[in-house]
Amino acid sequence: MSILAVGSVAFDNITSPAGSMENVLGGSGTHFAMAASFFTEVRVVAVVGEDFTAEHEAVLTKRGIDTRGIEHAKGKTFRWGGRYSENLNEAKTDFTELNVFEKFQPRIPQEYADSEFLFLGNIHPNIQAAVRLELEKVRLTGGDTMNFWINSARKELHETLRLVNVLLINDTEAKMIAEDSSLPRAARKVLAMGPQALVIKHGEYGATIFFREGAFGIGSHPFRAPALPIEEVKDPTGAGDSFAGGFMGYIASQGQLNREVLKRALFYGGVMGSFAVERFGTERMQTLTRPEIDARFQVFRELTHLE
Amino acid sequence: MSILAVGSVAFDNITSPAGSMENVLGGSGTHFAMAASFFTEVRVVAVVGEDFTAEHEAVLTKRGIDTRGIEHAKGKTFRWGGRYSENLNEAKTDFTELNVFEKFQPRIPQEYADSEFLFLGNIHPNIQAAVRLELEKVRLTGGDTMNFWINSARKELHETLRLVNVLLINDTEAKMIAEDSSLPRAARKVLAMGPQALVIKHGEYGATIFFREGAFGIGSHPFRAPALPIEEVKDPTGAGDSFAGGFMGYIASQGQLNREVLKRALFYGGVMGSFAVERFGTERMQTLTRPEIDARFQVFRELTHLE
Repeated sequence: MSILAVGSVAFDNITSPAGSMENVLGGSGTHFAMAASFFTEVRVVAVVGEDFTAEHEAVLTKRGIDTRGIEHAKGKTFRWGGRYSENLNEAKTDFTELNVFEKFQPRIPQEYADSEFLFLGNIHPNIQAAVRLELEKVRLTGGDTMNFWINSARKELHETLRLVNVLLINDTEAKMIAEDSSLPRAARKVLAMGPQALVIKHGEYGATIFFREGAFGIGSHPFRAPALPIEEVKDPTGAGDSFAGGFMGYIASQGQLNREVLKRALFYGGVMGSFAVERFGTERMQTLTRPEIDARFQVFRELTHLE
Repeated sequence: MSILAVGSVAFDNITSPAGSMENVLGGSGTHFAMAASFFTEVRVVAVVGEDFTAEHEAVLTKRGIDTRGIEHAKGKTFRWGGRYSENLNEAKTDFTELNVFEKFQPRIPQEYADSEFLFLGNIHPNIQAAVRLELEKVRLTGGDTMNFWINSARKELHETLRLVNVLLINDTEAKMIAEDSSLPRAARKVLAMGPQALVIKHGEYGATIFFREGAFGIGSHPFRAPALPIEEVKDPTGAGDSFAGGFMGYIASQGQLNREVLKRALFYGGVMGSFAVERFGTERMQTLTRPEIDARFQVFRELTHLE
């Protein structure tokens, strides 16, 4: 089934121990869509400027992504520059130019109205909520957020969390939202705010999904998927969105919503995140094949599988 | 088969968000032995002072631990005081009184000479090496170390690493030994120094075992075991030694040394670490039962097990 992603399309300047790249196609919508496109049909709602060329759009359309929801506005596309130090866990931002993204008001094309799966990338919680409320056929909404919104729009974020079925965030964000330094306690508190499931991404340690009691099945046991220990991480930018793309894309491809599907989706999220960091920007996703994904899924399985 | 543990016996003063406790029985040898005792026969070589009473010794002997190797010296037992802040990941040391431990020279009782499994707790690398070389029947040696030895006795540690089959350390220690900020690269470098397998403990994220190519089986794929998300961690002291006790104890109980055994051992390590932190000191181990261990092993399995 089709999944609709609302997020940013950006050009990134990235420096990591592996090198430097300028004007790399990126943004949460881009990374999510590229990863999800290996599993299901993907539609994107975003805004770009005049510097976004047909060649850039072809990166998405070659993966079969429906780009009719990408609005072309006057001015420049969102631009971000950042650098990663040796440990690669956190980026230091050099600059952020919102450009056309500053006044982004998602417009959902009529053709997208039947979308049953929705991913709300990391944008203002009010915009996330408005998109969700506009789409009447949605069966499952995944959402992301970040420290900036948690600090500056906490009340609005709380409202949005009631509309999100699966929230995908990292450890720090979970602790910030819950205002609790214990991860499992923070998870419980975030679930009490609305989501039926909470995916906490631990970077190189994998990810955990916590379920609200009874949501998507029986019980409330969490589930954990590993990450592949990768020696050469070239560019962590977009790893989280690629994770979300693999996770949500797999779910949308299954039709059923149960714990087994969500568990497998967590593995696929890790798989897609692990590919994304192997090259700068969308480079790895442009050459990736489904057999490679399936092979790595097996590697992830074996990574934690006891006979 | 019997496992011999060489390490410290200590009295700890511990403050955590869960409260404060004084004169808690601890030390690497104690925590290791208590955890390992659920799987196999355990022998301990350590030194204690006059403040170590029959009551303290009974904590160990009640678990069937052979304490004939614990030397009673004049003076006071090793004492440590520390406190954990909200995030519980790192202790701030209040004081360290080595006392009788300062001149610890392990004496291996004749009755221990047939030990086939050996755990070298966190003591000076030269003492670790001397113990290993004295024991001729040992089939597998596990070892621990810490930042203090990595910094102050790097050369000696390198010599000892050649004698250790499985090194058990945490992320920071692995990166320090290898002088590399990438965990998988660090793992490869540490394995090149001697050990056939390297267990890296990630705290609340579980643990990974890296194998030297061909060691204990075919290939060099790592394996990862989860940790249980625990809401109420009372006292993380000794979690690493309890992990090592579960890991080594399970291996010693199996007789065979192959990857499947080491993988299951990694899960049992996580299980024992997760119990250890539920109470202060050895308290949880004193009431723990094997059925509880087996039940939690199943929970750990389900935590990462796909249908």
